[in-house]
Amino acid sequence: MSARQYAALPDPFVMHRGGMLRGARIAYESWGTLSPAKDNAILLFTGLSPSAHAAHSAADPSPGWWETMLGPGLAIDTQRHFVVAVNSLGSCFGSTGPASPDPATGEPYRLSFPVLSVEDIARGGMEVLRSLGIARARTVIGASLGGMVVLAFAAQFPGASHGLVSISGSAASSPFAIALRSLQREAILRDPAWREGRYARDAPPRTGLALARKLGTITYRSAGEWAQRFGRERVAARDRADDAFTGEFQVEGYLEAQATRFIDSFDANCYLYLSRAMDRFEVGALPRGCVGRALVIGVETDILFPLDEQRGIAALLERAGVGTQLVAMPSIEGHDAFLVDIPRFSAAIGEFLHIS
Amino acid sequence: MSARQYAALPDPFVMHRGGMLRGARIAYESWGTLSPAKDNAILLFTGLSPSAHAAHSAADPSPGWWETMLGPGLAIDTQRHFVVAVNSLGSCFGSTGPASPDPATGEPYRLSFPVLSVEDIARGGMEVLRSLGIARARTVIGASLGGMVVLAFAAQFPGASHGLVSISGSAASSPFAIALRSLQREAILRDPAWREGRYARDAPPRTGLALARKLGTITYRSAGEWAQRFGRERVAARDRADDAFTGEFQVEGYLEAQATRFIDSFDANCYLYLSRAMDRFEVGALPRGCVGRALVIGVETDILFPLDEQRGIAALLERAGVGTQLVAMPSIEGHDAFLVDIPRFSAAIGEFLHIS
Repeated sequence: MSARQYAALPDPFVMHRGGMLRGARIAYESWGTLSPAKDNAILLFTGLSPSAHAAHSAADPSPGWWETMLGPGLAIDTQRHFVVAVNSLGSCFGSTGPASPDPATGEPYRLSFPVLSVEDIARGGMEVLRSLGIARARTVIGASLGGMVVLAFAAQFPGASHGLVSISGSAASSPFAIALRSLQREAILRDPAWREGRYARDAPPRTGLALARKLGTITYRSAGEWAQRFGRERVAARDRADDAFTGEFQVEGYLEAQATRFIDSFDANCYLYLSRAMDRFEVGALPRGCVGRALVIGVETDILFPLDEQRGIAALLERAGVGTQLVAMPSIEGHDAFLVDIPRFSAAIGEFLHIS
Repeated sequence: MSARQYAALPDPFVMHRGGMLRGARIAYESWGTLSPAKDNAILLFTGLSPSAHAAHSAADPSPGWWETMLGPGLAIDTQRHFVVAVNSLGSCFGSTGPASPDPATGEPYRLSFPVLSVEDIARGGMEVLRSLGIARARTVIGASLGGMVVLAFAAQFPGASHGLVSISGSAASSPFAIALRSLQREAILRDPAWREGRYARDAPPRTGLALARKLGTITYRSAGEWAQRFGRERVAARDRADDAFTGEFQVEGYLEAQATRFIDSFDANCYLYLSRAMDRFEVGALPRGCVGRALVIGVETDILFPLDEQRGIAALLERAGVGTQLVAMPSIEGHDAFLVDIPRFSAAIGEFLHIS
């Protein structure tokens, strides 16, 4: 069962850094009811890898990636708001991306997909709103890559949202984050199975994707959380060889499980495009009053999008005349805290939406 | 020109976790003059990848990896001390390791090398002292892996050194550090050129080694240093393609240069053995009075061997009745600060050695 809906993009859709797409579309899911005045919409952008399935619904009862945050009576309250989550342009869960067929050839775009920018992803979300007849969102929300996207949204579409929530995002990728993402991409590029992007659907560059995902997982969490969660526990002796070079500690088993789930769900070329878009993103000064008010959330243990960057985002919004609240979460879960430390994030986001 | 000397290990040399080596040796270099009472020796253990060439000498005038720390009138003053730096057992710069010929077959050990432990590396250093007729070192010093080795040394050979200097070391690898090292090893293991360890000398698993070294380099430094040093500077436009997925930012060029230097100098199997030994290291309670006094140095920006672990090392020494000084360096260079922030490290180490 799928709750996936589609919005057609303008045809042609001219990309931010050049090139264009024909017949492109954005996949999205929605919850709640749009008010007659169409003034209760929340637009949600995701991180690099999730689909638009943020929560279950009648049409798709499987739990979503923000299941405990979004629903009736939850922080993002679907009894009050009409919530629209979009799958990023360039991704592989229904929106047009490198794995989608190029209508000119009938073959997947692969590396012929034009250069993707965070600005294109923001515009994809804006086009979904337009397709629903919504001129102005109540709030745009995004975490991680999504936290970049909401800034690109505010820069490109001033006035198109009243509120903005940026969670563990970035206004310009740091060289540290670039180095890590570049290494993740290189792991894919160097996998012989990548074949310059021409891998078959059932023969993806599994090794490269596994290494990339494991490195991602390491940087999404924190050393302190893992010390508590895994310590130096070993996997059961029957499941490991004394002379093996991996697979001895429980933390290694955890990484393996994360990688296994990722390999067969995410497209390698889409990963390359989205990851590079994050590196290149650098928002300039925001238009004055681009949004009415903003909430910027960062996490003290986030090594990938550290608290200093969140302070920078808040300062950027303040300089544009946007009343901004900065919340520094003491969560131990690092960059991924928004997916795990639901009590803290619910409180902050719920309060912001309640008074918006 | 080489300043390399060799000490034969006891034959057979029984390894800490079982197995034995025949005809094994440790490569070392030395500076200064051993006093008639043989009481001025400093024993220096290295990190994972350096050789024993810590500084230049008449026999080898090329600069060493701690060139500005070790020499006449420097913090580790070779006019006062007889300094011995050892190449770790299991490494590939003269000491016996997986790349060395197995005397039983004449072929390199490769994966038939017995499991290597940090304790074996410590004993290798002790055997060098014995071969020189030195019963007791003035001070043992080690950074990173070397910081683990000095703890293993104190645990195994109580009374064999008066002083101990542990720099950015660990008493038990954290799951975060294990995860990173496991991923580095996996990058090598998954490289088809690794061939289960049976690669030819001139055809090493270059891709795996490059990925491992790049990841190492990322974790050896700090996000703050790179923000200052590289920012978001691009490499020259002529040297990059707009549609490439790597090589756009200067930080990526820096990583590439680091990897290139490493690939053809370090043996992949040695890397696997040394890296796994670090994961498995976990020193228990130290013998009472195992050393006379200790200096533990940590760096605030070190994400790999963080300050909390340095506090743990100091506590371990204190519990063994060892008067211990803990120094927390504010250096921005992360784990590698001991190689870069020479003024701060010179001051702390020089003072400790002066009053030892």
